[in-house]
This record gives sequence, C-alpha cells and structure tokens, in this order.
Amino acid sequence: MGTELLLGNTTNTDARDISIALAEIGVNVLWHTVVGDNPARLTECVYRARNRADLIITTGGLGPTCDDLTKQVLARCFGLPLVHNDEAEAALRKYFAERGNRSFTENNLKQTMLPEGCIPLPNDCGTAPGCIFKAENVRVVMLPGPPRECNTMLRNYVLPYLRGLSGEVIRSHMVRMFGIGESSMETRLRDLMDGANPTVAPYIREGECMVRVTAKAATEEACEEMMAPVVDEITARMREYVYGVDVESLEHRVLALLAEKHKTLSAAESCTGGMLAERVTEIPGASDWFRGGVTVYTEDAKCRLLGLRQEYIDANGVVSLPVASRLAKRVRKLLESDIGIGITGWAGPSGDDVGLVFVALAGPGGECWVRRLQLGASTPRGKIRNLAVKNALDMIQRYLSGKDV
Amino acid sequence: MGTELLLGNTTNTDARDISIALAEIGVNVLWHTVVGDNPARLTECVYRARNRADLIITTGGLGPTCDDLTKQVLARCFGLPLVHNDEAEAALRKYFAERGNRSFTENNLKQTMLPEGCIPLPNDCGTAPGCIFKAENVRVVMLPGPPRECNTMLRNYVLPYLRGLSGEVIRSHMVRMFGIGESSMETRLRDLMDGANPTVAPYIREGECMVRVTAKAATEEACEEMMAPVVDEITARMREYVYGVDVESLEHRVLALLAEKHKTLSAAESCTGGMLAERVTEIPGASDWFRGGVTVYTEDAKCRLLGLRQEYIDANGVVSLPVASRLAKRVRKLLESDIGIGITGWAGPSGDDVGLVFVALAGPGGECWVRRLQLGASTPRGKIRNLAVKNALDMIQRYLSGKDV
Repeated sequence: MGTELLLGNTTNTDARDISIALAEIGVNVLWHTVVGDNPARLTECVYRARNRADLIITTGGLGPTCDDLTKQVLARCFGLPLVHNDEAEAALRKYFAERGNRSFTENNLKQTMLPEGCIPLPNDCGTAPGCIFKAENVRVVMLPGPPRECNTMLRNYVLPYLRGLSGEVIRSHMVRMFGIGESSMETRLRDLMDGANPTVAPYIREGECMVRVTAKAATEEACEEMMAPVVDEITARMREYVYGVDVESLEHRVLALLAEKHKTLSAAESCTGGMLAERVTEIPGASDWFRGGVTVYTEDAKCRLLGLRQEYIDANGVVSLPVASRLAKRVRKLLESDIGIGITGWAGPSGDDVGLVFVALAGPGGECWVRRLQLGASTPRGKIRNLAVKNALDMIQRYLSGKDV
Repeated sequence: MGTELLLGNTTNTDARDISIALAEIGVNVLWHTVVGDNPARLTECVYRARNRADLIITTGGLGPTCDDLTKQVLARCFGLPLVHNDEAEAALRKYFAERGNRSFTENNLKQTMLPEGCIPLPNDCGTAPGCIFKAENVRVVMLPGPPRECNTMLRNYVLPYLRGLSGEVIRSHMVRMFGIGESSMETRLRDLMDGANPTVAPYIREGECMVRVTAKAATEEACEEMMAPVVDEITARMREYVYGVDVESLEHRVLALLAEKHKTLSAAESCTGGMLAERVTEIPGASDWFRGGVTVYTEDAKCRLLGLRQEYIDANGVVSLPVASRLAKRVRKLLESDIGIGITGWAGPSGDDVGLVFVALAGPGGECWVRRLQLGASTPRGKIRNLAVKNALDMIQRYLSGKDV
C-alpha cells in the first residue's frame, strides 16, 4: 500500500514476495490492490476485499511516520480498538538498545498500538511490529512495507500460521530456457497448455523463456506424480534450449556446473563493467570456483591489466572478435583459471555500432569460442549489458555440459 | 495483469513505470489492481474501474500466447467487437521481416484483432500492438506486458495523447540523503509534513532516505514557486546527510562530481565482487572517469592482481583495515587514477564475522580513509554488498564535495 507505489517511486516487490510464499503453501492469490495513503480509499479496498477473500494481507503503513495509517483504518473497518501492546513496546526498546546508535523517538511508540485481541508479530529486522487478527470469518495479516522486514516476518511467522489453515497443496516446476523467443516456444508447446491440472504457463524475461508446470492436489506426492510426464515432455521437446529445471538462474546453473566439474572461472569485462563478476559472486561460495575478474572498461585498462597492445586494439577495433578472445585468454592465464571469459561491446546509448557485442570463452587447451551478438541499435544500455552477461553464462553452461558452445 | 504477477513470478514494474509517467503529466493514479488471466475477475475489475476512473490503463494480455485475453474482455465490457486491423498486421509483418531470424507464426495474427474504432498504437520494440479507445466517458489504454514494450509505447504514443486531456500540472522534487534512519529524519522534518500543497513525504530504500516534495498547480512555474522554500528548508536542516536534489542515485552524483572535478576512479572489490564497477558503468560516459576495476574475490586474486603478499593478508586478516586500504592504494596506483577504492568484508551467509566490512578510499597524496561497517550478522548477503557499495559511493561524493569523508 502506499502513495509511493502510485507515484511510481518504488516497485511492489512485497506483492511478489507474498505471492511466491502463498503459492508455496497452496493459498490462491486472486487480487493485488494498491491504494494510496488515503483512509477513504483504503477503507473501500478493505470492505471489498473482505467480501471476496478469506485472507487479507496488507503491507506498509505500520511505521512511525505520519502517513502510516493502515492499522487505524483496518482496526476501524473491523470494529476493533487500537490498544497499546506491551510485548511490542518491549521488543521495540530492545531493538533500539541493541543497536545503540539510533535514538528511540516518541513517534516510535505509535508502532506499539495494535488492534485489540490480535496476535502481534515480531519484526526481526526493523521496528514496526505486524499482527494477525480474525474478524467476521476473515483473517487479516498486517506486514511492514520495507521488503526485507515484510518478507522476514512473512517467512518466520505468517507462513507457519497459515500452513495449518490450508488443506490443499500446490507444487510447481519451472523449466528454464535460453536462446528461444516466446512465440516459437509457445508454438512448440501449444498443445500442452490446455490442461487444467497441471497447468502449463509460459513466461518471458529479458532474453529468457520459462515454462511453469503447476499441479494442485491433496499431497505433495500426488502433485509430483501429475507433473512428471509433462515436465519430461517439455524438456524433451525443448532440449537444445533448456538449461535447467527449478534452477534459480543461469548463474546458479553455472556455479553448480563449475563445482560439479571442478573447474574455475575468471572474467575480463569491458562493456558489462563487472556485471558478470557481480552476478556470479552474488551466490555464496562463489569464491571456490570464481577466481576473480577485471573490469577493463577503457582501452588503457585493457593494456595495463591484461597486457594487450594498443596497436592490436587499433588494428582490430576495441569491439572485435580478436579483442574479445584475447581478453578471455589473457584473464584466464592471469588468474590461472580453467575458463576465461572476455566481453567487449558497444552498450550505447550513443555511437555507431550500439548493440554489437562479442563474448569469448577461452578454455585450457588454447581453444576459444566467440559469440557475436547484434542487438538492435535502440536496445537500451541495461538490456545490452544484461544479454551480454546472459550469453556468457549460457556459453559457460554449454561448455561445461558438453553441448555445442 | 496476469497470473504470473499473482504467482510472484514477476514484479509489477509496469505499474511503477506507468505511475511515474502519469505523475509527470499531472494524472493522479488512485488504484493499481492485479488480477489473473481469468475473464470473470478481469471483467469485475473493469466494471469497477470504469465507475471510479476517467482513465483505465491495462498491461499485458495482448501477446500471441493462449492465456492473453485482455483485448477480448475489455472489448466485451464496453460492447465493442474485435476486428482485424490491417495497419497492425502490416506493422507486425514488417517487424518480423526486419529481424529475419524469427518466423511469423499463425498465433501472431491474433495480435492484429483490435476493438472497433480504436486508435492502434505501434509497438516499437515488440510484436503486440496496443490501442486506445473511448467509451462511456472512460478512456481505455491497452499496453503490452513486457516492461520495455510497455514503457516505450507509453512514452512514444500514450503520453502525447494524454497530455492534451489534463489541465493540471504536478511537479515534484526529491531530496536524497545517505546515513540517516527514517525515524530520525521524520522527527527532524515532522512539522513540514502537514502541508497539503506542496506535500512532503518521506521514503526509505535500503540504506537511503528520501523526501519528496510535490506541488500541484496550473503551471510548472507556479509549482516551482510553491516548492522552492520547502526544498530549501529541508536541505538546510538535513545538510550533513543530503547528497543531492533530483539526483537519480548516489552513483550518478559520484560520476557528476568526478566529471566536474576532473578526477578519475578505480576500484578493487572483494566481497562486492564487481558491484561498484557495475553500478558506475551503468551510466553512459563512465569510461571518461572510471578507469577500471579488479574483482579480487579470493586471496590469491588479491596477491596476483594487486601484489599483496600472502603474509600481509595472514597477519592482518583478509577482512581488515590494513587490507582494505592496501587494496585501495594499489588499485589506484595500478590504474593511475586519482581515487582508489578498496572493499573487503564478510557478506555471508555463513562465517563468524558476517556483516563486517571495510571500505577504503585512497587519494593522490597517500591519504586514505577507511569506514568500518558492522552490519547485523543476520543481514542478507545482497544487502551487505549493497550497503558496502553505497558507503563507498558516499565516501567518494563526500571526498569530492570537500566534506568530511
């Protein structure tokens, strides 16, 4: 909830996180609604929600600032008074005492007023407590707005509470692909998408296609049994593009393969400026297999860090197949890794060849593969960089899986 | 719209982008609603929306896949038939012809059916056309779901159309701060937050506080006149924390300062794994001031790339003040930049000192500042890395602004 969402100042990641969590425990999410910090519209929203849902989850509006009004409105809608909650105050004072560096202000006390008879929910990484109450056959859960606080409270306290209330189980598997467009994928899988249980739904994200197979049944085992043949059929049809089932991301797949094959990786990045290194090191334990990287964004850095000669760059062009492969080979040697990646390209927005990127993979025997990407000149900078990194990751996973790079 | 949002598989960035755009042209956004790919609930949603709004914008459900049903439902709700649109088909065939590599499939043709009498909207970066129609005093705009297609169509065609319909102007300024918590900020600015026009609203994002001042008036000039004294008062009160007004981010501020002062930057990153380099190079033109970086995630990489000695690391600990400052000094020298940054820390999730990070800034005269961050041991890896990078950026902007680092 909140004016900041309606003004576009923040993205509604809470709605996503809550939806993911509820799907896991078999609660169907039918509506997301966002209203501003406005009592009348929030009230309208609550009245409507309680007529169509068994469970209402609100986010935001619990904090100490003056536009945080969720508790007041929700309590009024269900005819409950807000009362001071000792437990919540004690937790809040403890939170401040432990941190020492922030002073407990009077408006923090406002956070300890909760609807009468509710179950207070501790905030393990912030100050605003949440709560659960039941009224008129509807369960209401109020969570704080900051994404980490919201998600932590949800996982630690709300899911255990809700798990007991739901009889059915939903399970799903996600088949992830790289290198194919949504239409082509859908054409190939069209006949599988008519089923009601399990359902088969296509998704698309920058440069990646996914298919989610979802089943609903009394038990987890029954769900799995229903899904298995469908997942097998999809992976069989799309074999050349599939990089994993239930894999979190391309980089997770790459790190798992590096660990499995005991291979190490290093990267020399020009236009991606460290994005590949950043993605790979986002995963705990990456240091066992990722030996390091260099961000050689300027020609000077390419010469200084990797010993390329300026004449070589001038002769071939800084965005070229020879420069990409030299970056890959040199960084591999410099950091003594099994695989070296070199990326050079024009990310724009200005310039003649925006969208031209070379991604090179160098292996231990002197072998080197180079992918030439020609993305549209109007492709935004962020997308060019992202696709360059995804192509590098795809090349690595193909190399390590023994597929054609 | 879409089941994928309710399942949590994607984040509703379209709602954010549309809200930002509408705020710019003075259209008040009062509701965001998400429903699944379900005709009944979508219909309910449309009936409700047309009773409370002058403008309905839908996203998604225009594509060729089988669960895309927005056009059918919207057309039915307003009693309009879907008719084949020649213009839309021609544009679609052209799009495929230009790309060559993707085949035009029959289900693509579905996209060229649009409500009778509508204004078709070209999709400059995808296949699904959008449209605008007016019925029963409500204007309906249908946009595609993929964020880039949605935002491009919005900016290129919808905003120009809507600009003529709105009489009022909204303008806002955002004062951005680093290093202060939300409660403390609110306590200091509380009295300013009661105004109705301009409004003053606090925001918080990981490690950063912001205050948005928003005015509504007949002209842009009148808005500015109303906001100026409020913005001045906020920046005066919060001077020590404010790093910019209407600055896009800390990294934008840093790059602007580097350009203004003609200083260059380089970075040696351990726990952040290239995140600082990636953030800085996200901004076009970064190569003029960012000389490059090294991702020295392993001890071996620190020795190999920056010439640290293993005994020095062993004696001080790899996460220590001396190692951080040596990383900063060495990378500064290696890449001959004015400023060198060194970051070393424990990002977790496992280990004894998770949350301990040292960020060092080395300047040209041998001077070096080090910030020691002690984030909670339960702080997630992503947040530790993010805060380490933000602290580095804050140190750079303070150094370049002549403030205490």
